Amino acid sequence: MSSESPGPPLHFEDLPVGRRFITASVRLDLEAIKAFAASFDPQPFHLDEEAAKKSFFGGLVASGWHTAALTMRLLVTSGLPIAGGVIGAGGEVQWPRATKPGDELRAVCEVVAAKASASRPERGMVTVRTETLNQRDEVVQIMTARLVVPRRAGATAS
Amino acid sequence: MSSESPGPPLHFEDLPVGRRFITASVRLDLEAIKAFAASFDPQPFHLDEEAAKKSFFGGLVASGWHTAALTMRLLVTSGLPIAGGVIGAGGEVQWPRATKPGDELRAVCEVVAAKASASRPERGMVTVRTETLNQRDEVVQIMTARLVVPRRAGATAS
Repeated sequence: MSSESPGPPLHFEDLPVGRRFITASVRLDLEAIKAFAASFDPQPFHLDEEAAKKSFFGGLVASGWHTAALTMRLLVTSGLPIAGGVIGAGGEVQWPRATKPGDELRAVCEVVAAKASASRPERGMVTVRTETLNQRDEVVQIMTARLVVPRRAGATAS
Repeated sequence: MSSESPGPPLHFEDLPVGRRFITASVRLDLEAIKAFAASFDPQPFHLDEEAAKKSFFGGLVASGWHTAALTMRLLVTSGLPIAGGVIGAGGEVQWPRATKPGDELRAVCEVVAAKASASRPERGMVTVRTETLNQRDEVVQIMTARLVVPRRAGATAS
């Protein structure tokens, strides 16, 4: 457990539109899926392989909130400058495809909008789209987050 | 661990605009906040009380993803008919206020839009706004989810 910041401080100037970041990857196993579901999303298709076979998913799948939490872990632990305060000002999450036992996930982030504040020259607003991909490069989650970030000292509104 | 569905099946006709549901409540303690953060959001202000005092939050707070996961737990375990497939078709999450150690959370859901499908008479789209409140009735999370739900057999498009 560290009391240090997990990455360099985030500044508006570091996040132009089009900048991309790729995280490390993490493997999700069956026991971890069941443990998360037991605590946070105890539905049969997240907990019980037999029941899951008869469900919409046709087999056991991870809770979408587990995919979201693991994506956050990847963002924080990969040393990217966008870890702190992701979704600070709001965000959207979609799960176009289920995460399954044995999947290996990584996240790809891209700055899709960046706007300096007219009224607050010391800050800007950045929109980051983060896709979480499995080992077959299939998208299992899309998160779009709007972040309020400081500008570097001395920056002028543009 | 049950292989039964956690609640009655969800139908479009059960979810008119304005219908509200209130979940049970759950208390979040310091150790649970740290354990979740260690697994999924290892930032100093979720893990270390001394470091958190010097942070933006001024004290240790729960990961927003922990608040989201606990809200899902409340929805699933409170026997409401909107548990399954929440955020099935996409959703938005905001955290206007931090969740702190000792907070007791409950969720209040309200149907804010409902539209029968013109092209698929067997289904409809429902938008549910879920506010997660603490013991002082302060909103710590707002989630807006769009759900695709089946219509009852024999229902006609309206």
